[in-house]
Amino acid sequence: MDYIEGGWPYSNPKDLDFFKAMKEYSLTRARLAAFGSTRRKGVRPRDDESLNAIVKADVPVAVIFGKSWTLHVEKVLETTWEENLAMIAESVEYLREHGMEVIYDAEHFYQGYIEDPERALESIETAWRAGARVVVLADTNGGTPPHEVYRITAEVKRRFPAMALGAHMHNDIGCAVANTLMAVVAGARHVQGTINGVGERTGNADLTAVLPTLELKMGFRVLRDEPPPVKFGRLRELSRMVYEALGRQPNPYQPYVGDFAFAHKGGVHADAVMKVPRAYEHIDPALVGNRRVVVVSEMAGGASVALKAAEELGIPLDKRHQAVRRALEEVKRLEREGYSFDEAPASALLILLKHLGLYKERFRLTEWRVVTGPTPAAFAVVKVKVGGREMLEAGEGVGPVHAVDVALRRAFTAAFPELLRVTLRDYRVVLPTTVKSTESVVRVTVEFTDGERVWRTVGVSSNVVDASIKAIVDAYDFALQLQSLKKAAEVQGVGHLA
Amino acid sequence: MDYIEGGWPYSNPKDLDFFKAMKEYSLTRARLAAFGSTRRKGVRPRDDESLNAIVKADVPVAVIFGKSWTLHVEKVLETTWEENLAMIAESVEYLREHGMEVIYDAEHFYQGYIEDPERALESIETAWRAGARVVVLADTNGGTPPHEVYRITAEVKRRFPAMALGAHMHNDIGCAVANTLMAVVAGARHVQGTINGVGERTGNADLTAVLPTLELKMGFRVLRDEPPPVKFGRLRELSRMVYEALGRQPNPYQPYVGDFAFAHKGGVHADAVMKVPRAYEHIDPALVGNRRVVVVSEMAGGASVALKAAEELGIPLDKRHQAVRRALEEVKRLEREGYSFDEAPASALLILLKHLGLYKERFRLTEWRVVTGPTPAAFAVVKVKVGGREMLEAGEGVGPVHAVDVALRRAFTAAFPELLRVTLRDYRVVLPTTVKSTESVVRVTVEFTDGERVWRTVGVSSNVVDASIKAIVDAYDFALQLQSLKKAAEVQGVGHLA
Repeated sequence: MDYIEGGWPYSNPKDLDFFKAMKEYSLTRARLAAFGSTRRKGVRPRDDESLNAIVKADVPVAVIFGKSWTLHVEKVLETTWEENLAMIAESVEYLREHGMEVIYDAEHFYQGYIEDPERALESIETAWRAGARVVVLADTNGGTPPHEVYRITAEVKRRFPAMALGAHMHNDIGCAVANTLMAVVAGARHVQGTINGVGERTGNADLTAVLPTLELKMGFRVLRDEPPPVKFGRLRELSRMVYEALGRQPNPYQPYVGDFAFAHKGGVHADAVMKVPRAYEHIDPALVGNRRVVVVSEMAGGASVALKAAEELGIPLDKRHQAVRRALEEVKRLEREGYSFDEAPASALLILLKHLGLYKERFRLTEWRVVTGPTPAAFAVVKVKVGGREMLEAGEGVGPVHAVDVALRRAFTAAFPELLRVTLRDYRVVLPTTVKSTESVVRVTVEFTDGERVWRTVGVSSNVVDASIKAIVDAYDFALQLQSLKKAAEVQGVGHLA
Repeated sequence: MDYIEGGWPYSNPKDLDFFKAMKEYSLTRARLAAFGSTRRKGVRPRDDESLNAIVKADVPVAVIFGKSWTLHVEKVLETTWEENLAMIAESVEYLREHGMEVIYDAEHFYQGYIEDPERALESIETAWRAGARVVVLADTNGGTPPHEVYRITAEVKRRFPAMALGAHMHNDIGCAVANTLMAVVAGARHVQGTINGVGERTGNADLTAVLPTLELKMGFRVLRDEPPPVKFGRLRELSRMVYEALGRQPNPYQPYVGDFAFAHKGGVHADAVMKVPRAYEHIDPALVGNRRVVVVSEMAGGASVALKAAEELGIPLDKRHQAVRRALEEVKRLEREGYSFDEAPASALLILLKHLGLYKERFRLTEWRVVTGPTPAAFAVVKVKVGGREMLEAGEGVGPVHAVDVALRRAFTAAFPELLRVTLRDYRVVLPTTVKSTESVVRVTVEFTDGERVWRTVGVSSNVVDASIKAIVDAYDFALQLQSLKKAAEVQGVGHLA
């Protein structure tokens, strides 16, 4: 990245802490930028707290926004057009005098241009002549359609051919990514956005879509130096990291980096993808650190289940196999009860293994009880059958699910020490039905990892603790089944299943 | 809507059931369409199961897809270009002979055109001459950037000015909505999409964004007859209905219809929005059945909390009020512990009421215990203080949360009969922290309604049952506080708070 904008130090003191903390790091490429507005009306720049907060951030770059739209000058700032131009010019000059590179964001530029093109142009010319290195045309309310973004950006480029233009787009009509691309086609060479499109209202332009499209489809070189595939090879990982930091769930439908971005459903289609990937995939998923998945659902034919199994377990499998058909019927039946295997293929694979006769029972949770109350502590008793022996174990946890998990792990310690490095990565609960009450069915999806592989399982029950435990039991079971299959393959191969 | 495509009867027998079920309804406007492919290679149309399944659907319109891309003809179909053209022509003719209107979807048209424009054009000309009423250019793998969609669609329009063109876009690079709009700008007058953009991989063009943009921003008349605001006045409701039917959570960041589509954060900004809505909102939210919300979060100034309160409770409030500042501090502290008030403003309002001295304790849950196990039944004991009296109540439920809810409602019956019509509408659990294990903190958000008003509250705990109960207790508390405030306002007004 060329620039990292670290926040608005005047409006949020935490952002100033960020710039302080960043002193510890030496960035090899990116330049840090602090955000803010032009000075307030009737105030000298050196007396303006917002501008001084930018200077105080002590970074090489300032990004400031100012007004292009007469409506804002008259009704929001309640000042004259002349004062607005002075605010722009003096603010850019002040920051330049403090040695900063200035990027000027022309707020609501497109609306301003549509209502009064000459004044809108005058505002950005003012910023430019005052020394702004880039003039960024912002669609601040996100309501401009892509052909209008193209037309207006191209008109600005014709009027000021030497002006370095940028694009800052919001997603209010679902066009932030496309509007950014159209601005680039019209001459912009600087794009602003966020990872995953995180931003107020409907979000900003999602850089995880803008950047690979510019490079892989439009012939631009973005993110200096490194060539693809290195360049975008960790894009999905970056996207995940940002979701984790925000405590938000990743969007499985997200372009390029989402779980389903390269998912194929339905038997015929899945067959064809394997044969000629280029015929169905707009890029090789590996270029952005993603991968192809075959989704198991009621729409899918036997081919999908078979492909999934082949991929995950290394079992070559005839899709017309009777066991595959029976497994699919069970999947469909469970989906009507609220299960969703699209999000939890490992649970579907357990079903398939059972129908194939490849499932080897390694343990069974035969009983459990939990007592819990308003303090975090909860107590669980579990009865687990391992290798023909029934064990009674107790667990104490910070909640009922944790208490059962602790008791289960205690029961596993001797027999399956390898499960101790298996950990939960994600946990989600949804009400899958339209009739909603505290007695509705809930669906719990969990994601586990052993450090290398990641798998997801699902449990459904009217009892949230019961659903959670079903999903967790499936997750441990899946880990053990994989292990059994691996051993079986080492001993005799599994080709006889085909 | 002009057309409703009800599925692919050949590939999914459930879709045939849909067409059968629809015989019970008389549609005043929309025409039902059945989907399918052109005939298989080397088969006569009358012997082709897929074409006959379309005929058997017994609807007025057929939508069939065929090949425009030589790669698909050679590598997927493994046939000749001549046979491909025959498949297209004969399939369109066969369906027309059965009295159907035919819409022809040119699969992978844009990729096909880029690699071999003459053959791609020949394929759609064949469909057109065979009698297809509309030729729909499909970006089937969703990888074409918007300027290319415009260029290619415009070239097709120039070549065949009399051909009725349509657009069918996928969202693999995040441009499905914009690509649909660009195709319309280039001459398409038929758009295909889905409500909420639901579709395989990253989804199809989202009609909840395409349609209002075409009408409100681009001057087209869509959805015959009714003028805005009637036309889109229930768009948000429609979006919700589709999410409910699918058992999916609505996307709060969705353009036009999402919870946050017209959300304003931050004090200064929120002030200005109230003053000049047009300066910040790209449309009046009421046009699409949505509404403005002021989001309470750590970024927000006192103004946001005050506005929220003013809006929800009818309390005129000075944003510099010390109680507002203290409430905001508490909100910030709780957000660091995993709470998120953006999604649960009612819980934030309870905090504000406490700091304002307006909170009147109506009940207190002092103790609860739950015993649960793998059968759905769970038992709860709750101790509730109502009007100075402490009551011990028992509840049996299908899970621990339900059991506590049942016991609570029993305790409320005598004192607050009005709470009996308050019901849960939505329930979500997420892990808000990056460190994930079964002992992590979980955040539960619930949505309740009394039939008129809808409110959301939040609870955080390491115990999923505890977090759920905190959220539910807040929800009941909010209903009772609203009632108290309403009574107080009737007696003496609340203007003294300002």
